[in-house]
Amino acid sequence: MTGMANDVSDILPDFVRGARSDAERRAVASAIALPAHVVQAKGHGHAGTAMAMAPLAHVLFQRVLRHDPADPTWEGRDRFILSAGHASLLLYTQLHLTGYGLELADLAASRSLDSRTPGHPELGHTPGVEMSTGPLGQGVAGAVGLALAARRDAALHDARVWDPTVFVLAGDGCLQEGVSAEASSLAGTLGLDNLVLIWDDNAITIDGGTEIAFGEDVRARYRSYGWRVIDVADARDLDVLETALRDGAMRDGQPTLVALRSVIGWPSTAIGGTPAAHAGGFGAEEVAAVQAMLGFAPDAVLEQLVEPDALAWARQAIERGAALHADWDRQRSAWASANPEAARRRAALEAGSAQPGARGGSDPDAGDALALLDAIELPEQGTPVATRKTNGVVLQRLQQWGGLFGGSADLSGSTNVAVPGSAVSAIEPGGDFVHFGIREHAMAAMLTGIALHGLWRPYGSTYLAFSDYQRAAMRLQALMAAPVIHVYTHDSVAVGEDGPTHQPVEQIAALRTIPGLSVIRPADAAEVVAVWRRVLEQPDGPVALVLSRQDIPALTDASVRHADAAAGGYVAWQHGDGRAVAILATGSEVHLAIEAARRLAAEGIAARVVSMPCWEWFEQADEAWRDAVLPPALRARVAVEAGRGDAWHRWVGLDGRVVSIEEFGESGAGAAVLERRGITVDAVLAAARSAIAR
Amino acid sequence: MTGMANDVSDILPDFVRGARSDAERRAVASAIALPAHVVQAKGHGHAGTAMAMAPLAHVLFQRVLRHDPADPTWEGRDRFILSAGHASLLLYTQLHLTGYGLELADLAASRSLDSRTPGHPELGHTPGVEMSTGPLGQGVAGAVGLALAARRDAALHDARVWDPTVFVLAGDGCLQEGVSAEASSLAGTLGLDNLVLIWDDNAITIDGGTEIAFGEDVRARYRSYGWRVIDVADARDLDVLETALRDGAMRDGQPTLVALRSVIGWPSTAIGGTPAAHAGGFGAEEVAAVQAMLGFAPDAVLEQLVEPDALAWARQAIERGAALHADWDRQRSAWASANPEAARRRAALEAGSAQPGARGGSDPDAGDALALLDAIELPEQGTPVATRKTNGVVLQRLQQWGGLFGGSADLSGSTNVAVPGSAVSAIEPGGDFVHFGIREHAMAAMLTGIALHGLWRPYGSTYLAFSDYQRAAMRLQALMAAPVIHVYTHDSVAVGEDGPTHQPVEQIAALRTIPGLSVIRPADAAEVVAVWRRVLEQPDGPVALVLSRQDIPALTDASVRHADAAAGGYVAWQHGDGRAVAILATGSEVHLAIEAARRLAAEGIAARVVSMPCWEWFEQADEAWRDAVLPPALRARVAVEAGRGDAWHRWVGLDGRVVSIEEFGESGAGAAVLERRGITVDAVLAAARSAIAR
Repeated sequence: MTGMANDVSDILPDFVRGARSDAERRAVASAIALPAHVVQAKGHGHAGTAMAMAPLAHVLFQRVLRHDPADPTWEGRDRFILSAGHASLLLYTQLHLTGYGLELADLAASRSLDSRTPGHPELGHTPGVEMSTGPLGQGVAGAVGLALAARRDAALHDARVWDPTVFVLAGDGCLQEGVSAEASSLAGTLGLDNLVLIWDDNAITIDGGTEIAFGEDVRARYRSYGWRVIDVADARDLDVLETALRDGAMRDGQPTLVALRSVIGWPSTAIGGTPAAHAGGFGAEEVAAVQAMLGFAPDAVLEQLVEPDALAWARQAIERGAALHADWDRQRSAWASANPEAARRRAALEAGSAQPGARGGSDPDAGDALALLDAIELPEQGTPVATRKTNGVVLQRLQQWGGLFGGSADLSGSTNVAVPGSAVSAIEPGGDFVHFGIREHAMAAMLTGIALHGLWRPYGSTYLAFSDYQRAAMRLQALMAAPVIHVYTHDSVAVGEDGPTHQPVEQIAALRTIPGLSVIRPADAAEVVAVWRRVLEQPDGPVALVLSRQDIPALTDASVRHADAAAGGYVAWQHGDGRAVAILATGSEVHLAIEAARRLAAEGIAARVVSMPCWEWFEQADEAWRDAVLPPALRARVAVEAGRGDAWHRWVGLDGRVVSIEEFGESGAGAAVLERRGITVDAVLAAARSAIAR
Repeated sequence: MTGMANDVSDILPDFVRGARSDAERRAVASAIALPAHVVQAKGHGHAGTAMAMAPLAHVLFQRVLRHDPADPTWEGRDRFILSAGHASLLLYTQLHLTGYGLELADLAASRSLDSRTPGHPELGHTPGVEMSTGPLGQGVAGAVGLALAARRDAALHDARVWDPTVFVLAGDGCLQEGVSAEASSLAGTLGLDNLVLIWDDNAITIDGGTEIAFGEDVRARYRSYGWRVIDVADARDLDVLETALRDGAMRDGQPTLVALRSVIGWPSTAIGGTPAAHAGGFGAEEVAAVQAMLGFAPDAVLEQLVEPDALAWARQAIERGAALHADWDRQRSAWASANPEAARRRAALEAGSAQPGARGGSDPDAGDALALLDAIELPEQGTPVATRKTNGVVLQRLQQWGGLFGGSADLSGSTNVAVPGSAVSAIEPGGDFVHFGIREHAMAAMLTGIALHGLWRPYGSTYLAFSDYQRAAMRLQALMAAPVIHVYTHDSVAVGEDGPTHQPVEQIAALRTIPGLSVIRPADAAEVVAVWRRVLEQPDGPVALVLSRQDIPALTDASVRHADAAAGGYVAWQHGDGRAVAILATGSEVHLAIEAARRLAAEGIAARVVSMPCWEWFEQADEAWRDAVLPPALRARVAVEAGRGDAWHRWVGLDGRVVSIEEFGESGAGAAVLERRGITVDAVLAAARSAIAR
């Protein structure tokens, strides 16, 4: 029946089973009542899942999760990711009850400007939040990446001390999203048995019962991925939940799905089990009824919903955490003594991860990452080489450093990210690279999880055109400033024969719109190395490295200095004072720009070419630099880029000219397609003359 | 073992079984040999899958598919979508052999500029191609949408005559992509038994054997979705293939997966079964060996690979198609005679679909679509109303017309697309709307399939922030100029409390970068109605309707004429000659702009406000209109939009000012977030003064 899910008629009066004391029972009652009360008081927010999953969250935070409320980023902790981010009150309530410093006033202020309790959990904003979530499915895929990194850590460093369990809570929405399906399939193949996915099987979505659009057998699906499935028929029994979670966390070679039948909005009888329980208040009367049912006064105010004894009981989590933490400190010391080499390697990695310029990496004797970069021999002047190839050389060299971890979505050869070593697999958890499969979206989202783990800079690779599959994950990592490196090759219609579906046209412009993502398109081998230096030195958010499939020459007349490329834009070629016209370009088009500028110079025109590998960096450069590169008085400006050009008017203005590609490409030889789409020296020349003439 | 898939040792000499004549056998031999030869001759392209799947394609085109080579768009045809688009030679070879007009010279010219045989199949470019494919997974989801539309057609019009079977061929890549998983799950729930998904189970991807990243049990997964699975252990036996396809096409309430074990690059022994068979030539020697194995001269040239008898046999497909077509014409006439009412309704729909301005729709007596639009009563002046609400009214009214078909990704209430009627389901195939589930990507891709079916204008809806999940599908529909309507509500940080994950900032700018997509952001109820008129009148590609969550006022001083809004930009408010400063804006920000302009006017400054609901349309407007709206000499310009602003410099130049949002939002009341992010009348005013002062 649409609109009604699991049966709620049998839930009373024994609303929670398995509490070991009255105080524990009262703590659970508080955890259920708080979200109902807060949402009703505010008139908006999501209470239904926070109520129904309160016993589960209670068991996690009080019985199962290794965590230390006094030190939310304790390295030895297990992880809990709330993929169903709208149920943020579920998490905030536990962070209050177990002593992370969130107070009732914070809960009451949820979803208000400057509160510590935003509508969806935000990493870095609230202690105890492991990942920003909200867009559905992303938390599941992030958890898979985190579990993958954690398992590699344990494998490479011979230590159960570095072996957390990753728990993730997902609703039907998360499991309908393709990104979670992709990641879950890979988790099964890789045998990530440190991962427990808890599915809130409440049979309800916003538009109605799940049967309207989600009739599949989720348990069978997860079994088909190679997961173990633990069925929990009753989400209200603490002991049953504890057993399921502990069983799920067992290292038996398979990730685990804990399928938890529940009733959204439980224990409300009027709203529970209906789509109306998803969002918004349940009504004053119904909240009063719920409070009464839970043993509170029907008219209890917020402060009365957490009784002193219950809070005192719940706050024992602090002592429990301190004990776990102290015990872990001892284990870690014992491990370090027994495994000095592994400890040294890991410490170096940890140092390198935060500060790649320092000596670090899995093989510190190989020198630090920047020294490895410096040692790369650039191709001979006059030897054209694709920037994807130079990038491949960089990745191979950096393997010696060991501070990177990533792979490809089934294009390791074409994107030149194949590095020596072994692939990560169920039997090779410490492998060197990841075959993500043909799963661009999950790859991007898993890279976020690897970044959250924190030991390695994650990278992934595919064709630039397929960045379209990844944007939802990239946006979230930009929001978290996760320092992920996206390697995108085949960066224009110069891809050629594969045709318009594989030829990016709008992707560079579209990626530049994501706040906090640095889009970097180097123009030759030297720029590739130079931009990598900044990427390693300043891991302050995700970057997209946009690289050519085709060979392109070296910038023969420019001696590319790291500082120049790292400034995002610099004068790569100039005649005279270069004040007659400026031609701005990125990547392969810089060479067209220089050729056009040379022809102008032959006529005595003082042209300059500005290579702008990264707009975002150029914006961050100081004004004096920017004005020197692009003198404000120099208004005859041309931009050339083999992609959509509107945003280039930011740099060239109304009077400037933009040589760009405004429509899709076509199948044919790359050079022929470029020419047909107007990316030619002649076009740049004509544009320059026109800009000068105005 | 990585790099080797299914065993190829037993394939000789009986390379094809089940041919009913030597001529048929020779036709199959040609179909295998042609791709191998062509790719080797060109040095690039994809032969492996085209070779291995040649018997399957042969059986489809010669025995199973209802098609008419002389009339590729015959309405009664079955559909075949090649989701594994890189295997385009598989399709082109059949289009040659069965007489669609592709010649050997076309095959030889494949992947060349202006050839009829681009690298990936392109709709509208090559007769017989049903959908542009290439980005993996999209063809599967498109096929699900097409099957859904076809089944609805049959259900609503009581006719098996309108009941094609949709076949789609996918590789491992397609099945690893989340978009295919989402669509397949929904296909199972909806019981689309007119859909046959053929999986080329060759156990190989580009980076190695599928075990490296795809260890799941695909058959079990599809069973978990509610699909029937037919296993074919040998992809070389024509009779076995025919039986499997015919069984798959049976209407038994479930979609069918035909799992076809194959050897990529078969019958090559040296390259077959390895990742090297995916792309590139097999080498002259190996191609010679393959040709010999198939009974051709080792050094046979292209023309010798299709023997006259074999071609004559294959071209019997033309007669077979003509007979099917003629028979269908008779059935159609009989149906029309027996079901005059259904025939009248369908004819009206067909006419309306192509030309919504004409009287049409499922209930022609309700008047034509445009009349329905004209009859919508706009809110009282001074009554603020969210554009999503007005859009909802439009959708409800157009239900009477019946020319739209779509739904929502579990947000039908919030996006105001809930229309009266029943949901499509397994038992209600003719339902009025689709619950796509929480599957934004599959929704978008399925809308493409509905558009390809051609009877209805498809629409979908979600929050604007989640358009990020859909871009790969939107790009493909832009490439095909598929007239899909994307309804995106909650269009700025004014979303408020749900916070930055749900607040779009970069999406409007990012969508504008997709060539051929019209991004439309109306500023009030009148503009909503006006832009719908153009959307219905000119179905020339996908559109994104970007709508507010919050109430916004009516443009009281502007009498919004359809022609103005349909021009993409017009003067919505003006003081004096409006030549002192122009303030450009879209959507909710138009009202801020007007308030700022009023204040300037109070000081005697001749300000104008330009509402620009659609940049793409404005670009297409004639120059005189554009110059009247934005006089070239008027250089004091300001743009205001609650999102990333770089591209607005295209309209305001270097001297202009852009009031925009360059970083993510935050959780809080919508109005407070807007203010904190600088979208205020004061900010617009200051920008205008600054622009004037320059």
